[in-house]
Amino acid sequence: MKLLYLLPGNVRDGGLGEAEMLRRRDVLQANAFPGTVVEIADVATGPSSIESMYEEYQSVPGSVAAIVQAEKDGFDGVILGCAGDPGLDAAKEMVSIPVIGPGENSVLLAAQLGHHFSIITVMDSIVDALEHLVLKAGVDRKLASVRSVNVSVLDIGKDPDLIRRRALEEAKAARDQDRADTIVLGCMSMAFAQLDKEMSAELGIPVINPAIAALKTLEGMVAMGISQSKKAFQTPPKLLK
Amino acid sequence: MKLLYLLPGNVRDGGLGEAEMLRRRDVLQANAFPGTVVEIADVATGPSSIESMYEEYQSVPGSVAAIVQAEKDGFDGVILGCAGDPGLDAAKEMVSIPVIGPGENSVLLAAQLGHHFSIITVMDSIVDALEHLVLKAGVDRKLASVRSVNVSVLDIGKDPDLIRRRALEEAKAARDQDRADTIVLGCMSMAFAQLDKEMSAELGIPVINPAIAALKTLEGMVAMGISQSKKAFQTPPKLLK
Amino acid sequence: MKLLYLLPGNVRDGGLGEAEMLRRRDVLQANAFPGTVVEIADVATGPSSIESMYEEYQSVPGSVAAIVQAEKDGFDGVILGCAGDPGLDAAKEMVSIPVIGPGENSVLLAAQLGHHFSIITVMDSIVDALEHLVLKAGVDRKLASVRSVNVSVLDIGKDPDLIRRRALEEAKAARDQDRADTIVLGCMSMAFAQLDKEMSAELGIPVINPAIAALKTLEGMVAMGISQSKKAFQTPPKLLK
Amino acid sequence: MKLLYLLPGNVRDGGLGEAEMLRRRDVLQANAFPGTVVEIADVATGPSSIESMYEEYQSVPGSVAAIVQAEKDGFDGVILGCAGDPGLDAAKEMVSIPVIGPGENSVLLAAQLGHHFSIITVMDSIVDALEHLVLKAGVDRKLASVRSVNVSVLDIGKDPDLIRRRALEEAKAARDQDRADTIVLGCMSMAFAQLDKEMSAELGIPVINPAIAALKTLEGMVAMGISQSKKAFQTPPKLLK
Amino acid sequence: MKLLYLLPGNVRDGGLGEAEMLRRRDVLQANAFPGTVVEIADVATGPSSIESMYEEYQSVPGSVAAIVQAEKDGFDGVILGCAGDPGLDAAKEMVSIPVIGPGENSVLLAAQLGHHFSIITVMDSIVDALEHLVLKAGVDRKLASVRSVNVSVLDIGKDPDLIRRRALEEAKAARDQDRADTIVLGCMSMAFAQLDKEMSAELGIPVINPAIAALKTLEGMVAMGISQSKKAFQTPPKLLK
Amino acid sequence: MKLLYLLPGNVRDGGLGEAEMLRRRDVLQANAFPGTVVEIADVATGPSSIESMYEEYQSVPGSVAAIVQAEKDGFDGVILGCAGDPGLDAAKEMVSIPVIGPGENSVLLAAQLGHHFSIITVMDSIVDALEHLVLKAGVDRKLASVRSVNVSVLDIGKDPDLIRRRALEEAKAARDQDRADTIVLGCMSMAFAQLDKEMSAELGIPVINPAIAALKTLEGMVAMGISQSKKAFQTPPKLLK
Repeated sequence: MKLLYLLPGNVRDGGLGEAEMLRRRDVLQANAFPGTVVEIADVATGPSSIESMYEEYQSVPGSVAAIVQAEKDGFDGVILGCAGDPGLDAAKEMVSIPVIGPGENSVLLAAQLGHHFSIITVMDSIVDALEHLVLKAGVDRKLASVRSVNVSVLDIGKDPDLIRRRALEEAKAARDQDRADTIVLGCMSMAFAQLDKEMSAELGIPVINPAIAALKTLEGMVAMGISQSKKAFQTPPKLLK
Repeated sequence: MKLLYLLPGNVRDGGLGEAEMLRRRDVLQANAFPGTVVEIADVATGPSSIESMYEEYQSVPGSVAAIVQAEKDGFDGVILGCAGDPGLDAAKEMVSIPVIGPGENSVLLAAQLGHHFSIITVMDSIVDALEHLVLKAGVDRKLASVRSVNVSVLDIGKDPDLIRRRALEEAKAARDQDRADTIVLGCMSMAFAQLDKEMSAELGIPVINPAIAALKTLEGMVAMGISQSKKAFQTPPKLLK
Repeated sequence: MKLLYLLPGNVRDGGLGEAEMLRRRDVLQANAFPGTVVEIADVATGPSSIESMYEEYQSVPGSVAAIVQAEKDGFDGVILGCAGDPGLDAAKEMVSIPVIGPGENSVLLAAQLGHHFSIITVMDSIVDALEHLVLKAGVDRKLASVRSVNVSVLDIGKDPDLIRRRALEEAKAARDQDRADTIVLGCMSMAFAQLDKEMSAELGIPVINPAIAALKTLEGMVAMGISQSKKAFQTPPKLLK
Repeated sequence: MKLLYLLPGNVRDGGLGEAEMLRRRDVLQANAFPGTVVEIADVATGPSSIESMYEEYQSVPGSVAAIVQAEKDGFDGVILGCAGDPGLDAAKEMVSIPVIGPGENSVLLAAQLGHHFSIITVMDSIVDALEHLVLKAGVDRKLASVRSVNVSVLDIGKDPDLIRRRALEEAKAARDQDRADTIVLGCMSMAFAQLDKEMSAELGIPVINPAIAALKTLEGMVAMGISQSKKAFQTPPKLLK
Repeated sequence: MKLLYLLPGNVRDGGLGEAEMLRRRDVLQANAFPGTVVEIADVATGPSSIESMYEEYQSVPGSVAAIVQAEKDGFDGVILGCAGDPGLDAAKEMVSIPVIGPGENSVLLAAQLGHHFSIITVMDSIVDALEHLVLKAGVDRKLASVRSVNVSVLDIGKDPDLIRRRALEEAKAARDQDRADTIVLGCMSMAFAQLDKEMSAELGIPVINPAIAALKTLEGMVAMGISQSKKAFQTPPKLLK
Repeated sequence: MKLLYLLPGNVRDGGLGEAEMLRRRDVLQANAFPGTVVEIADVATGPSSIESMYEEYQSVPGSVAAIVQAEKDGFDGVILGCAGDPGLDAAKEMVSIPVIGPGENSVLLAAQLGHHFSIITVMDSIVDALEHLVLKAGVDRKLASVRSVNVSVLDIGKDPDLIRRRALEEAKAARDQDRADTIVLGCMSMAFAQLDKEMSAELGIPVINPAIAALKTLEGMVAMGISQSKKAFQTPPKLLK
């Protein structure tokens, strides 16, 4: 199967650069089942990073267009590569191939692994938005907390140790003060810094990498021949060609 | 006070035309308290009508830019003139003046008028999105149902009797089968067709006109000097100038 | 329009005295839109202050009778002037003009301004009652906390600085410990001490004055010609004349 | 132990008359455990029947005064004899002996007997009030429906067959259409018509008699030496003597 | 009436021994209404103590068989003597006589006595299971917290002072930090150590003894001739003889 | 990776026979990713079919023992092959390898595919148990309905057309009357009759096969090196060796 990991921002010419894009593709490919090919793309019209609802919305027209094109280009499924799932319902409306929102997917997985999960994200400005994501996903009763490291996405690359240390601090606080028994990394920069194994070993509880978890769920959906319900995500008649 | 009613779609050159825009402005002005001036604008880059999440997202970048400009131009508050409140949280992030989402505002008013409210909207494709709006607004326990008339926005103008008859049919069903004691018109074309008084007289229960209700709430907020919480809707640091 | 602000206790001869009643009328009138006349009245059979459910119930027969009389006297709407909304549903049953409960109205407004609101009230003995009010209003998922200053209503007048200082302390605790992004003053003595502007400036988040907010909502309802649903608040057949 | 069953309306000189009061006392006494003495009283200042929130509130000042007196007179506990539990929280505030609300008590018992319960009550005008009672009791997730027979309390005595037939009809509809597996009689006239055994035999599911269930819970509480929490139901300091 | 208190573990030859079993029978008998006879039994195939879901499940086949036999032996009702209610729904399916789960019964009683209750239990490993019990009982909105003393069941007997002191410490923390106004003892060893009266006197709030509360509810149900709904707890056709 | 699909009943010598077991193994193997080996086993001490909570509990001691042994035998993960997930939490307590409950896993997947899902199961007697499963999984707000075909598990094999026709009928009713946009097969006999593709084509909405979905999720978890949280599912100290 051929899958697209779509970065809904301007990565190549914006913050992170093409080398980081290719490195992320390699991380995903290395985690794929035999027979899966993962390609990666970004959205040139998108923001350079996403730390607010404003930036989420800025990314959507371009990323949905890219997902529509991906279906035409024969991809079997798409991962919308941002933990806030910007425009996920619009993307699900416009294509028939499965589209995974790594935020939604991770919190539903967390609900299966434990009773109380916490999300560790980048900035305070996105905490309420992630709470709404969990509410819409339906598992808000199992949400222990959303905590932010308050390190901007574009600063994460500058000091990898800082994000590693801060993420672990907040995850420990989530475990010890908020009763979290499961952690979700709520940011793709943390995901591709591959902090999950190290943090899990340190914390003694599961830590979900949203990028890898999205990949495994998408591979499963494609293998099962299953996708989002078109009764739930209707393509409006006037947009059908 | 000076208020902006922003149509988040391309109305002038799209479906409805400038005359309808001016008529809507007049309806709002006629319903304003003394001292209030209402101006109206549309978003040229927006869709011609909104009946899906896809179209909601298409409207957002242009409408948020228009709201940011409105604050600079000295408006005291803005109504985001679509019952689905597209991009409302982004708009609240980006300005300090109050921004009203007519959908959110109407369902909170409905929760004050009765115990069980129903929303009557245009198309089946937008029903689940309105349920999510109610969930996010927080009054989902009082939602009796969302019912659609299944008449496209752009067809409403063509046959005013059709929408009048269908809206009344669905509202009666909401009252008699779903236990609704209060009705919210979940579409601005219904709002500006001013169906609310006639329907309320026929049904014997309150019918909320989301355009007028938004105006009255906004006038109240401006008069009180109150606006959305900037702790809840943070402007991301990098976007502050 | 002509509106009645009804104090459901014995204010003239009880705690606060007629001068305070007249001052409150002036505060309301000064906050009204052009064309609105606000009158004020108290309930001679009511308690001198309300800090328990017992006192709430004591106030109801007299205040509902006064509201029924107000409708006969041509008032266009009534504010039931206590943040606990004592007997609100009974009042809504017995008249057709809109009756505003400042508690219910303020928490629904708070749900529109932010994601997590806290109520600051007078005494611990009324905290659970306010939580029930929020539950019945339907926005309990957005309630961060109810905090009390533990200063009795009748002591508020004696030491205005005490209530000012204590209200600010508890609101800060709500913001910093309970995650409140919006504050509701849950007591009419705080409302008419007009602490809201000063507190909001100090806290950096909106503070809702329940008296003024009730006035603006009532003016909006009267202007729209809308009132509580008589399907939700039925007048029992035997009480219809 | 000595228990008071308090009718919160004017029964002796109002609707039902003293003979009915004495008959009810006998029904309760016949259902008591050995050693329990049940006395009965009404509230002369209360309404002749309760089918609205307005009438509920009318009953409260008199019934709470009677309950305060009962404690002074040495009663070990009180049943507030109306399925709407009017003023229950005020009564719990003002005395230390246990006070049972038959509505609250019955729905909590129903939650123990099955998964989905329905309440059968007298008039449509009280349906929403009973839903609020269930919400406040905390078991709203288990509420299948509240159905009314639409027979006025004072007409129940005139045609015992009518109420018997209508209650059974609505209970069958609750079982077959609303998935109820347990029925609560939501009216004391139905309770003392002792419809429960006959209905249960006919329906094949438990039917809770709120009067008898209240008696058994109160006997249990008195035997255990347990009562409502005075932290939850605080007597306001100024009312403590 | 003749009631069985069934210990779902191996008590006689396991941890506690026959003398403790007989002492518990005497405690229950001493708390029974006149005319009630309480017998006690254990389950030889059950675990020696229950501090995990694994042990809960181990106890079920034996205890359900014992309850089926109790019905045949003419018992009028059974108490499943563990605060975790292991296999309660299976027991309710297999017999017509009422079966009380002391956990479920206590939390529903707590919901009647106050607004916020806490459960004090033995081990951290059972905390989440008790939260699920409360969720299934339906009163999760009233749950303040579940706190454990972290003393193993089999160690309770060795140092009665330890459990007394630790239970009081955790209950005070529940009252002062978690806002509990009512306490449920979530362990039968605490129940039969009869800590409730002493703790309640110390704390100033009600403390529910689950063993005695179960007895009083069961006596009430048997007296009313009421039992679990067989529509809610269906005996599968193939198991009907 | 090496995975065990454990049938928690006596299949070989009970209802279905060894040939059916082997056929099921082949179905799973055919759906596995390259590199996955699926073995199958049953529980000789378990019931011949599971249509009640009683039978669920009967299966648990044997199936948990088998899962503990599977971990010792080097399996990388286990599927507890019954849609009711009997004893799932006990199994998660006793091993470190991931254990999938196909019921829990399917409803969390359904929550990702749509907004409202229905479960189609075998017998009315298991409907409430599946509702509790959904409540515990946390996605009850998205549950449209649980519907049963009322065909006993052991009769499914006798008339494959009956179950096919009845499942489709109930799924259509779920879609058209209960608003389901996604269907979960709530029975392993339906899963291995592989009704999902055919039903989905007929209904136009996704139909989840719980056996295959469990396999894909388990393969994903093993590949990610992730398992249930041992903080959420603690092994009690005395059971640690």
